[in-house]
Amino acid sequence: MNISRTSYPRVVIIGGGFAGISLAKKLSKQEVQVVLLDKNNYHTFQPLLYQVSTGGLEPDSIAYPIRKILKDFPNFHFRLADVTKIEPASRTVITDIGELKYDYLVVASGSKTNYFGNESIEKHSMAMKTIPQSLNLRSLILENFEEALLTSDLNERNALMNFVIVGGGPTGVELAGALAEIKKGILPKDYPDLDTRLAQIHIVQSGNCLLKGMSDKASTKAEDFLEKLGVNIWKNVRVTNYDGKTVTTDSDLTFETATLVWAAGVKGATINGLDAENLVTRGNRLLVNEFNQLIGFENIFAVGDVACMVTDSFPNGLPMMAQPAIQQGEQLGDNLLALTEKKPMKPFEYHNKGVMATIGRNKAVVDLPRFKLQGVFAWYVWMFVHLFFLIGFRNRMVVFVNWVYNYIRFDREARLIIRPYKKTIR
Amino acid sequence: MNISRTSYPRVVIIGGGFAGISLAKKLSKQEVQVVLLDKNNYHTFQPLLYQVSTGGLEPDSIAYPIRKILKDFPNFHFRLADVTKIEPASRTVITDIGELKYDYLVVASGSKTNYFGNESIEKHSMAMKTIPQSLNLRSLILENFEEALLTSDLNERNALMNFVIVGGGPTGVELAGALAEIKKGILPKDYPDLDTRLAQIHIVQSGNCLLKGMSDKASTKAEDFLEKLGVNIWKNVRVTNYDGKTVTTDSDLTFETATLVWAAGVKGATINGLDAENLVTRGNRLLVNEFNQLIGFENIFAVGDVACMVTDSFPNGLPMMAQPAIQQGEQLGDNLLALTEKKPMKPFEYHNKGVMATIGRNKAVVDLPRFKLQGVFAWYVWMFVHLFFLIGFRNRMVVFVNWVYNYIRFDREARLIIRPYKKTIR
Repeated sequence: MNISRTSYPRVVIIGGGFAGISLAKKLSKQEVQVVLLDKNNYHTFQPLLYQVSTGGLEPDSIAYPIRKILKDFPNFHFRLADVTKIEPASRTVITDIGELKYDYLVVASGSKTNYFGNESIEKHSMAMKTIPQSLNLRSLILENFEEALLTSDLNERNALMNFVIVGGGPTGVELAGALAEIKKGILPKDYPDLDTRLAQIHIVQSGNCLLKGMSDKASTKAEDFLEKLGVNIWKNVRVTNYDGKTVTTDSDLTFETATLVWAAGVKGATINGLDAENLVTRGNRLLVNEFNQLIGFENIFAVGDVACMVTDSFPNGLPMMAQPAIQQGEQLGDNLLALTEKKPMKPFEYHNKGVMATIGRNKAVVDLPRFKLQGVFAWYVWMFVHLFFLIGFRNRMVVFVNWVYNYIRFDREARLIIRPYKKTIR
Repeated sequence: MNISRTSYPRVVIIGGGFAGISLAKKLSKQEVQVVLLDKNNYHTFQPLLYQVSTGGLEPDSIAYPIRKILKDFPNFHFRLADVTKIEPASRTVITDIGELKYDYLVVASGSKTNYFGNESIEKHSMAMKTIPQSLNLRSLILENFEEALLTSDLNERNALMNFVIVGGGPTGVELAGALAEIKKGILPKDYPDLDTRLAQIHIVQSGNCLLKGMSDKASTKAEDFLEKLGVNIWKNVRVTNYDGKTVTTDSDLTFETATLVWAAGVKGATINGLDAENLVTRGNRLLVNEFNQLIGFENIFAVGDVACMVTDSFPNGLPMMAQPAIQQGEQLGDNLLALTEKKPMKPFEYHNKGVMATIGRNKAVVDLPRFKLQGVFAWYVWMFVHLFFLIGFRNRMVVFVNWVYNYIRFDREARLIIRPYKKTIR
């Protein structure tokens, strides 16, 4: 990669997610050369992907060009690259567009869907971790209803109208709620030829509650909200397989469905060269110390989902969410500058600012450090926080316009099959 | 196709473009059963596709779900279908999802890119007639600049930064203007490592003026605007070939470019079974009489781009634009109702409400029947008219927000490579 060296030390950041971007912002006007690498030329606001899948938001409103974030920063370089390997001995990052030397390396490569080794599920299910994946799901949902119109086989029609979501975390809960609202508000009008009351939404959770990371109150209320919306909740059920038609579980329970959404787990998106056994912990994450420093390396760091920082409160590592990622990115920015000035680094301390999930119209659950909210006011808090953290004024405006419109009109107008999923991609 | 017959006569409309939708609206509360068939589940507002390609608008804001347009209409059915053949003898439409009988058939299948038989150009060039095509072009433009950063071969880098647009109609002119503004306002900030002044935008026109269908004044002024924006205008030059690298012309002139946009012509998207020689005229359009009735058929009609209606003012047929399509759709709606009531049909009369094109910020040309405008005021007229004709309040709001933002900030934030073109599609 032809990026000229300057007299400043070079920091290479892999990944433009929450962690990578907040780190980059911290380093923006400092005496370091920064090279940010990402597979995409945009930052994705992952918490709203489920609204893309369900036609509530356009994909472009939750994506933001990385180059635009960096444009006023001197000493910044962005390259659209897929990192294939890291060679710590020679301080080199190897990518699909060439090699690059670093003085400091920050791995902020995030997480990817964890299928726990089940290839059949991986092949036949839908994930919702990226914008293209979310658009594929949007297309598939709509294609299924178009196809349901064409069959006179009742079982096939029901399978096309059934949705099974595996995983009771925020992604699963939010998607289930949105699908239930579509079933109620949009399907009967859009498909008068179909008996859309037969469409079923199932959420399957291996543990004994939804929203495991949140309070009991939030969990119970979320269940309550989903049940009122007509979602079928299956707890203590583990999905064992899916062949594109039938979902089998560890009990007698099976589902016939054309759409399985796999939101049952994520794992760190580690990179070759840093995946030695002693570095990688539970969930395929890189073990870091309190400075986000990779165990055994002076100049390699990991932040965000891919980093596993164990604390007293989080013996399995900090949660894989936006907040720890943003805070680690910011703290590491300060620490890298300290390092270059030969000053001591400060240990990272996680400030839990709250966890939240929305179930639907006027329905959200919010656990703040001091108090917990459920219902309408929680929903406003959820919206405000998400608008606030979204990058870019235009994105905020467009999302706001969509939300106001969707709220007033009970609608989701981005129900568009722009790239058919079944015909062209599968 | 399992659509039950009612006592009403059945009108099958092929295509949900301007003509098909305006016809459908006219028939909405009448005593006819209407089946609308389209390859997509959305209506595309084609005049703004170039803004999708250039990152100024998100695709979802110029698409509108067809089912939503039809949702309050009784006796309406939509099917996502690709029509493969028409059998007039048995009054049957054959599609990829089955057959359908009609009493009245309306072909509103629009137009497609005309490569005039040049397969090499068809294979290597980019078109801009559909949303996926426009998104492919958006991705390619951005990928080219990312790639230009990686090469040290100056010729290759220049080829990646050069854009050749073939065709001086509204599409070509609007795209050239938008690219010129991107070159000026966005590239230098986004790609500080590149000398983006070297990026060249060429528009090549076989005739001796741009915007042939418009007034001399509009044509001259458009040229003037483009030149001021730094676009290279080549008139009386016919592109003869493109192999993915070099554009050859009928003169000594050649261009090295990684991106050729073919906007040099369209032809009617006729359908098998109706493509007999006596039916099809210049530009592959179906010859219709003053009632939009296909020559030789009582119950088959064509409207919009695919229909060729010859008038005194338009000896080669009405122009392939939104206005004639919308007006023909509306008129045919009245005429079909007249037919079912055994009343006489009224001949179609085209009311030219004006033709317009925008070149860029504060720069547009508008030919109205009574007067002609160029410049800032024309630009406001252009925007107002396009917002007015866009379907859906949400779309109008989102487009408006984007335009205001882009205007104030000199920006286009949808510069996102959501689906890479080179890597996955080509």
